[in-house]
Formats: sequence, C-alpha cells, structure tokens
Amino acid sequence: MSPRDRNERPGRAGATRRQFLLGGAVAGVGAAAAIAIDAGLNAADNTAVRTSVSEPLNGDVTVPFYGAHQAGIDTAAQAHGLFLAFDLLPTTDRDALRRMMRILTDDAARMTQGKSALADSEPELAVTPSRLTVTFGFGPGLVERAGGARPGWLAPLPAFSIDRLQKEYSDGDLLIQIAADDPLTVAHTSRMMLKDTRSFATLRWSQQGFRRAHGSVKPGTTMRNLFGQVDGTSNPEPGTADFDTVVWNTTDGWAADGTGIVVRRIAMDLDKWDRLDRPGRDQSVGRYQSNGAPLTGTDEFDEPDFTAKTPIGFPVIPEFSHLRRSRSENTAERIFRRAFNYDDTPTPGQISNAGLIFVSFQADIEKQFTPIQRRLDELDLLNEWTAPIGSAVFAAPPGCAEGGYIGETLLT
Amino acid sequence: MSPRDRNERPGRAGATRRQFLLGGAVAGVGAAAAIAIDAGLNAADNTAVRTSVSEPLNGDVTVPFYGAHQAGIDTAAQAHGLFLAFDLLPTTDRDALRRMMRILTDDAARMTQGKSALADSEPELAVTPSRLTVTFGFGPGLVERAGGARPGWLAPLPAFSIDRLQKEYSDGDLLIQIAADDPLTVAHTSRMMLKDTRSFATLRWSQQGFRRAHGSVKPGTTMRNLFGQVDGTSNPEPGTADFDTVVWNTTDGWAADGTGIVVRRIAMDLDKWDRLDRPGRDQSVGRYQSNGAPLTGTDEFDEPDFTAKTPIGFPVIPEFSHLRRSRSENTAERIFRRAFNYDDTPTPGQISNAGLIFVSFQADIEKQFTPIQRRLDELDLLNEWTAPIGSAVFAAPPGCAEGGYIGETLLT
Repeated sequence: MSPRDRNERPGRAGATRRQFLLGGAVAGVGAAAAIAIDAGLNAADNTAVRTSVSEPLNGDVTVPFYGAHQAGIDTAAQAHGLFLAFDLLPTTDRDALRRMMRILTDDAARMTQGKSALADSEPELAVTPSRLTVTFGFGPGLVERAGGARPGWLAPLPAFSIDRLQKEYSDGDLLIQIAADDPLTVAHTSRMMLKDTRSFATLRWSQQGFRRAHGSVKPGTTMRNLFGQVDGTSNPEPGTADFDTVVWNTTDGWAADGTGIVVRRIAMDLDKWDRLDRPGRDQSVGRYQSNGAPLTGTDEFDEPDFTAKTPIGFPVIPEFSHLRRSRSENTAERIFRRAFNYDDTPTPGQISNAGLIFVSFQADIEKQFTPIQRRLDELDLLNEWTAPIGSAVFAAPPGCAEGGYIGETLLT
Repeated sequence: MSPRDRNERPGRAGATRRQFLLGGAVAGVGAAAAIAIDAGLNAADNTAVRTSVSEPLNGDVTVPFYGAHQAGIDTAAQAHGLFLAFDLLPTTDRDALRRMMRILTDDAARMTQGKSALADSEPELAVTPSRLTVTFGFGPGLVERAGGARPGWLAPLPAFSIDRLQKEYSDGDLLIQIAADDPLTVAHTSRMMLKDTRSFATLRWSQQGFRRAHGSVKPGTTMRNLFGQVDGTSNPEPGTADFDTVVWNTTDGWAADGTGIVVRRIAMDLDKWDRLDRPGRDQSVGRYQSNGAPLTGTDEFDEPDFTAKTPIGFPVIPEFSHLRRSRSENTAERIFRRAFNYDDTPTPGQISNAGLIFVSFQADIEKQFTPIQRRLDELDLLNEWTAPIGSAVFAAPPGCAEGGYIGETLLT
C-alpha cells in the first residue's frame, strides 16, 4: 500500500464531488469504500461496506494501519489529538522494548480498525474509530536503550533564547500520538495505551489538543489557532512528491521510511494579543487574520511577494513578520506542520491557559526544522505574544506489514 | 417560540428520514431549515438557507437563543460541554449584576447565532456555531447579592457519606454552561465569557467534558461513560409533558420557567473497575454493559422488571444495583440528566484521571434530586468504583425575549 492509498487521495476528487452534492459527512463513505477496495475485501465484506454507504457515519470511517509509513502523519488531521510521552522504566531492556512494541502495535492495529484490543474491558467503546490513528515516536533514550544507531538529528533541540521550557512538557523516551474525530475514541484508546505501557514505562507528559470538529467546516479548510490566525497555509500537500521529500526519511537505517517529529508546546498570551489592533496583528504575521491571505495578496493561497513595497518604500510584508522570517531561501529548510490547539483550565489569576501544540514532521530535524526555528528565535514579531514552554523530538519508525510491528527495524 | 421549537422536534421525523437516506450530518439541514422557518426569515435570508441545504455543515447549525426557557437544557446534548463557575467580586452589587447579565446575554445571543460578540477580537472564530448553547445558572450567593428570594432548594446539597468533595470543583455564585459540537467554538466562546466576567467575578472552577462527536453515532444514541456503560437511558424526553413536569419550575417567582441545576464531578476508578468481571459489572448497574438493556430485558429501552427472580429466588436486578437504587416508587423523584465524560491528564502515579461531569436538571432539587442521591448514598454497588469529588447547585433563570436579558426576573 502506498502512502497515497492511505491518505485516501485517489478517491478524493470523487468524494469532493459527492460532498458537494450530499454534504461533508459523506466523505466518510468515499474513504470507507476506498479502503474496502484497497484491502481487497471479498463479497461478504462488501455487504458491510454497502450498509455503511446507505447510512454513512463518520464514526465508522477507518484509516488503514499497515503500510510503508505510519498513519497519522500524512492523514488529514483529525479533530482531536492527544500526545502521550513516556519515560522507560530502568528494567525495560531491548527484549522488553520488543514485547512492548508488539503489544502496542497489536492494540493500535485493532483499535484503528474499530476492533477492541485484546483484554479491552470496554470493547463497546472501540467500535467507533472515527478515523483513529495511533502513531509511535522513539526518543533518543529509547534508541539508546535498544542499542540502535541514533540519527544525528534525534537529539534535544538547541536552546533558543525565546524558550521557557518546562520539564513537564519536554523530552521523553516514547511518544504515542492518538488522533481521531471523536473525543471518546481518543479517551478509550489512550486508556488502552496507558494500561499496556505500564509494565514498561511511566507517563511523563500528556497534551490534549483540538481542531475544528468533523463536519464543522469544509474538508481541507486550513485550521485557525486561538489567536484567530489561519495556521498552516504553506504546508506540503500529502500525496505529492514534495511532501514525500520533506517528510520521509531515506537515509537513516532503521528510521528510513519514518520521519522526525517535533512537538513543541507554544503558550499564547491571549490577553496581550487582545491589546494589539487588527493592522498590528496582520503585520506581525504577514497575513490577514480575516482570510489568511499574505499582505501582498487577496487569497489564502496567493504566493507572498516579499519584494513588494509600500508607497513610502517599506516591504508590504514586514521583514520581522512570522511569514517572512519562517520562509527560507533554502528549499531544504521545509517542514510539514500538523498542529492542534490547546485550551486548558486557567490557573488562579489567569484568564486563559491556551496555545498551540506545534507538531511538525520532517525527514531530518536538524537540517529542516532547526534553521527555521533559529531564524524565528532571532527575530519574529510573534515572539512578543508566544513562548515555547515544552519541546520534544522523536523519530517515527516506518510503518509495518500485517504480522510485523512498529519498531521492528530497530528492535529485531 | 415554544421549547418544542427550540428542541427542533417538529422537524425531527423528516430529518430522520433524510438522515437515513443521506447520512447523519444532514440532520443539520433539517435543523437549519426548521430554524429559518421558525424565525420567519424573508426571501433574502432563505437564499442563505438554500446555500446551506446544498452544502450542509454541522458547523452552521444554530440553536435559537431567545425563548421561554434557556437553551442548553432541552437541547440534544452536544459533543463538548464546558462548565465555568465564578465567585462574584465583593464590589459586584445588584446594579453590577444587572450590567454583567446584560453583557453576557448579549454575547451569548450573538455567538450562539454564529455572530461575533461586541469587541470580539477574533470574530473569525465565531462564525461556526455548531449548535452552540450558553446557559446561565445562579448560585445561592448571587441570589443573595441580588437581594432576591432564594428558593428553598437552592442550597448546597446535604453531606453524603460517599462524598469526597474538593473545594476546587464545588459551589460557586455563577455558572456558565457552554456546549457545542465543535471544541474550537467552545474555546472561543469560553474566552469571551471569561473576558466579559472579569470586572465582576473570578473563575472558581472549570470542568471540560465530552460525549461522542457529532456524526460519530446515530443521533439519539444514548451516551456511554468511561466505564463503558450506556448512561442516561431512563431520561424524560425533551418536548414531552413529562419532561416539562420534571424540569421546568412553576412555583419559585423569578426562577419560574427556569430549572434547578446540579453539577457533580464523579471520579471513576477505571483501574479498580478493570478488575471487575463482566457479570459483576452488569450486576452492579442492573443493566448489561453490552447494550444497556436491563437484566430482565433484551433491549436498552425495555422497562426493568424489579419483581423478576432468579431460579434460586434472588431478584434478577439486584437490590443493590444502581438501576434499582436510583428508581423511586415516588414519581415526583425524577430528574433529567445531561452528563459529559471527562478525561484529564493523570497526576503522577495515576493511570487515569477520568470520570463523569454529572449534570441534572429538575424543577426542585430538594424534592427531586436529593432523595435519589440519599438512596444511592445509603446503598449502590457502583459507589465501590465512583466518588463524588465536586458538587454545586444553581438555579437557571428562565429564558428571555429579544431586548431582554437572562436574569431579568431577578434583577429588574
């Protein structure tokens, strides 16, 4: 199965057409049908698919688990994302890691397909996958424990001057990203993962995020963050050669066909942001808050013109804007973003405790992500209103075939 | 506008038929169309409705704000519920309360209709109402501050032996229940409410809960809690005379046409629950976990037969089961439940920090809720796995007409 299949792209044009006629939710049918064809189901199984066509529910839609790459990376972002990071117990050696990843792979393979995991005491909660994906990332500590070769880029990021990192949102040996369009599905999957890791690891941190619900806005709408900004416009498109180049690692042995994961918790000062007027907001980003168009354009996807000047000779897109500072001349310095908003309970005295769980995927974190972050650290007007309070890096191993397990390239 | 209209019941049969043909998401269109007719929109506005019919998005669906009763009570429960409780500042007198409720009413009236509140600095986040409702409740302290007559039932519940109440989840002067099918809508609405209360009150506690996402399961499916139980089967049906009798207060002056609100945070010990086998689980509740049917029936909605005996003479539905203990011979002792699950980040050493935000509405808390809770306190096998850790009561004032404000019966 190619990543194109998993991302349900071949059927996309057709699905879009149907969505236009019948409404967004029918996207699920397109996907379900595509998956049925993809998996080569027999006639009996096709009956089930037909049932789902007559009564399509997004809760029934599944994303294939097995494949060259892990799901949850090139999968259209779900409404809810939960990030669990674990510290390995001192007793978890290479053999234990292999046992753990076999168990977790089996759980994920089942649950993503709407089947309960082994020993699931609430199998009734597992029957609504809602595009569930479970994605594993290995931190430097896990690779070391496994006795594997650590890719050069799999190391804590350099310290940035803007960082206000808190240990409770940073680092970790194992990452499990659980994402689905249904919050109960995420909760139940998380429960199974927490139960099945406990002989091997302890929870280090947990971050819960969200985007628009399925069916709230048209599929493919770029998300907005809690500053109100359109966030993620300039992103490689899954299923394209460009995406493959940016995301999939091709050089690092066991990590090839996987990717580098950066998870950074960015606190956003909504109170301070409130005091900034609309032109100030637009200038700080280099895009209009109204529709995400660059200040030199009218449409979200217009290419920004960094050479355009105002009548008095200043760049229309300010030099210090987030858009200008994050854009590199070096085309190797690109990443794929897949972020989630967070909005936790304010602590006493706060009006908000909100921000962004910044998540990016890139073949080589050091070459692709770090230079961008370094430029933003030096100068980015948005830094006035944001602060990174957590940071972690992981290597997502490649996907696996049925009978295999995630991490087998490192652990076998 | 009657509560029946607001609950979108007249169009329900039609919508259900369409859902069967076209999928759950189209429920939104039925609702949107019903609302348009309800509001008596003119031809120009009907064009907008037609647009929404050709491309129905749940994000566009609105629940009317104005009416005899507040919305968010008889409204089919949304996917996300956020409960904010506030303490009034010492300076917030009766005049200030009136100003506060005028502002909050205006915010809620706009935002629930997909319009931004005044001075909303992110109006782009307000255009996706997703069935947003904002419901206000007044605690004993607010009523006292207003110099109003406190209904006898508007007082902290008696202490129950099972209670393990924490101050940070209990009591409060003002409750704002924000519920929508979209988590970003809830976050943005919450932000406006927190900003517009800050001159009058401070946040006391905040609880975030969820049910199945819109489109995950068929509309009308009873929710499941994190124990895997079908939760809320025996509930009055909004739009029926029975519901009206149970929920709407008719006797308490300013609170008439409103209702009493109980919010209790019930911690659920998932680890301990895990050690209970399936027959034990079924017996503790008196219903099958598989489909929620009473142990004397086969279907969720079968009437339980408390007289049925096992071959050796024990009741089929145990005397100590939650179902048996919560059912009263006295038909006045009934409540309407509208709960949400919660699943917060585990604290160190925990595998889960999960439970239920139990929410019930009843005309008179003391007559209807308290006797049930007293029986459950005396004996309910489920108490082995659950503990109330928060408790608060509020009076929801009635709804208001355009130009009025929520609380006017108390504050004018």
